[in-house]
Amino acid sequence: MIEALSARSLAWGRTENNIRALAGYAAARKAEIGRENVFDFSIGNPSVPPPPCVNEAFRALLEETDPVELHAYTPAPGLPSLRRAIARQLSEKSGTDFDWRQVYVTMGASAGLAAFCRAVLLPGEKAVAFAPFFMEYRVFAEAAGGALVTVPPREDMQPDLGALTSVLDEKVKLVILNSPNNPSGAVLTEESLRRISALLSDAERRYGHPVYLLADEPYRELLFDGRRPLCAADYYDDTVICYSYSKSLSLPGERLGYLAVSSRVRDREAVFDAIAGAARGCGYINAPSLIQRVVERCLDATADLDVYARNREALYGGLRELGFTCVYPDGAFYLFVKSPIPDAVAFSERAKRYELILVPSDDFGVPGYLRLAYCVPREMIDRSMGAFAALAREFGLKKE
Amino acid sequence: MIEALSARSLAWGRTENNIRALAGYAAARKAEIGRENVFDFSIGNPSVPPPPCVNEAFRALLEETDPVELHAYTPAPGLPSLRRAIARQLSEKSGTDFDWRQVYVTMGASAGLAAFCRAVLLPGEKAVAFAPFFMEYRVFAEAAGGALVTVPPREDMQPDLGALTSVLDEKVKLVILNSPNNPSGAVLTEESLRRISALLSDAERRYGHPVYLLADEPYRELLFDGRRPLCAADYYDDTVICYSYSKSLSLPGERLGYLAVSSRVRDREAVFDAIAGAARGCGYINAPSLIQRVVERCLDATADLDVYARNREALYGGLRELGFTCVYPDGAFYLFVKSPIPDAVAFSERAKRYELILVPSDDFGVPGYLRLAYCVPREMIDRSMGAFAALAREFGLKKE
Repeated sequence: MIEALSARSLAWGRTENNIRALAGYAAARKAEIGRENVFDFSIGNPSVPPPPCVNEAFRALLEETDPVELHAYTPAPGLPSLRRAIARQLSEKSGTDFDWRQVYVTMGASAGLAAFCRAVLLPGEKAVAFAPFFMEYRVFAEAAGGALVTVPPREDMQPDLGALTSVLDEKVKLVILNSPNNPSGAVLTEESLRRISALLSDAERRYGHPVYLLADEPYRELLFDGRRPLCAADYYDDTVICYSYSKSLSLPGERLGYLAVSSRVRDREAVFDAIAGAARGCGYINAPSLIQRVVERCLDATADLDVYARNREALYGGLRELGFTCVYPDGAFYLFVKSPIPDAVAFSERAKRYELILVPSDDFGVPGYLRLAYCVPREMIDRSMGAFAALAREFGLKKE
Repeated sequence: MIEALSARSLAWGRTENNIRALAGYAAARKAEIGRENVFDFSIGNPSVPPPPCVNEAFRALLEETDPVELHAYTPAPGLPSLRRAIARQLSEKSGTDFDWRQVYVTMGASAGLAAFCRAVLLPGEKAVAFAPFFMEYRVFAEAAGGALVTVPPREDMQPDLGALTSVLDEKVKLVILNSPNNPSGAVLTEESLRRISALLSDAERRYGHPVYLLADEPYRELLFDGRRPLCAADYYDDTVICYSYSKSLSLPGERLGYLAVSSRVRDREAVFDAIAGAARGCGYINAPSLIQRVVERCLDATADLDVYARNREALYGGLRELGFTCVYPDGAFYLFVKSPIPDAVAFSERAKRYELILVPSDDFGVPGYLRLAYCVPREMIDRSMGAFAALAREFGLKKE
């Protein structure tokens, strides 16, 4: 009996992730009772506009460039000038050389993650992610025929390296690192990075094949309190950087990012070729042409990211004062709040009664927390405090 | 022994297709001897600018829309307003109803083809393509775990339906139709479409599972001599339309297209869900946001496609006069020229001596032809005639 459709594709198409489901609920609720009455912390869509250079670049390109050239196919890995600029920037900001010929421009970080999983994973092989993690990692690993293995966090949301040791078997080809982290806002310490590097190097020696470290860094510039980003490639040779301009340039819908294979990666040309082949198999022809040119002109700019730092203070401070327990976020634009009851899904449901839209952490591989995306207008945070106060009272939380 | 990389991804990344290779050669040659001295017929990149409404839409959207909203994530299947407009247009131009909830906006036709293969093909199952065909069909079918089976053409490049009958076994889940055709310029006749429909309906009854017809139609509007496009969904129930705005709006680099599941498809909601799941597995988050809005405003416009009709006359007439045998193209912007020697690859090499860049047909699944993309400046066609005359003389072709 031959099935009409791929059961796996069907299942992925039918299991709406919780974020999209809650965002849909929030949209419907806003239509019903008015935008200003819903406190929507569901989705990680930047709330600050792109920096001015983005609009200037759009305008100049549309006015000055021959439209046939402007909208033409680019080479599959991206415009050489953009790839060169990315490699130069990465090399300057780290202690590692990046060669432009191993930079592949992708349609956002997700396309890069999906392609890289297909480039390195074979059926039966494994990728490792540190919980809490972006839920699509599992889909991408399984779509490549592999499996995702997860490592639970410590209480402070730093990776539990003992647990990492126990999952590093011969089948592990890939470890995904996401710092600053979605959904917890935690930033990996240099000490953790060194120890992960040592463990992966041991595994490579033990098993005789590469274990790639994929540094998924869409929040690289979203670091608070004067922290500077660490480049994983400085600590571990077989590192590939996955980046997106969604957050730093506030262009999430435009789908632009890249994979960059560090020059320290053994057989880096082959890794690049496998990325190119995997991307080809997914039907990527090239990342959108106009936006490649826009981003090339704005490579050193960012949106006003200080807004998120101020939002963090307001939300973290406000919730702490009401008696909520939160992970103090060093980066990204998410606050990870401990659910006052063990079942975070049930808590998220109760929060809806106060028009608070909070994403339960279960889908991120950790139970018992709520993710609050604070890339929202500041005044919404301020106005939400009354609702949080009522919620805190219902659950008997004590003011600090 | 565990391999470092996926051998299949590596192979796809390393086998440059002939078109890209020749286009690269042409670019290098232009740099060497001057653009005007190279007659580059290699690549199907539109030579006419987008219609004026495209630039107007860009300008208006960038000026008038809140940039946070303009560049935000859209729903994964695309903006509802765009999906509604596409469904309305398809329904109006055919005798079949298309429901917007089964329109999935993709990053160009290739992304749609790749996703659809993953939605319906399981390991060991087959897709059928009529030769000559777009070479990536094979990659997409194999990337889904399936295989591509090809049906050779008749001399006039219409499908050989006897040959189709012989390949339609139980494992065939999908038949891909591309009319107007890349690379031959042939347009499927209504009679052929009726007979294909009858054969696929027979196969469905015989094997008890759907055999989907995927109508890959990026050249739908590029029809000459007053011809009107046929909608495959009017002839066959289990039809899915795959479209791209690359050619009709001259936006190939911007990557926008769609998959539309006809309302006659049994279990059309499930087909749509499987498409959505397959797209998710490939890391598609949404098609680029700004360009979705631009295309929505220009849905009934096209670039000045008459330019291609005039180019066709000039190139076809000129080459016929020099003694070349050509398939008369009823659509698209390609001329399929018979190689004067059996080995079209060798002929393509010889043509380079006259600075003529012609793609041999072998990669399209038919030996012995050359594809000439005539989406080029008209004056290049005129100037190329001296080079073609010298080539004709070398191979002893006789003037008409």
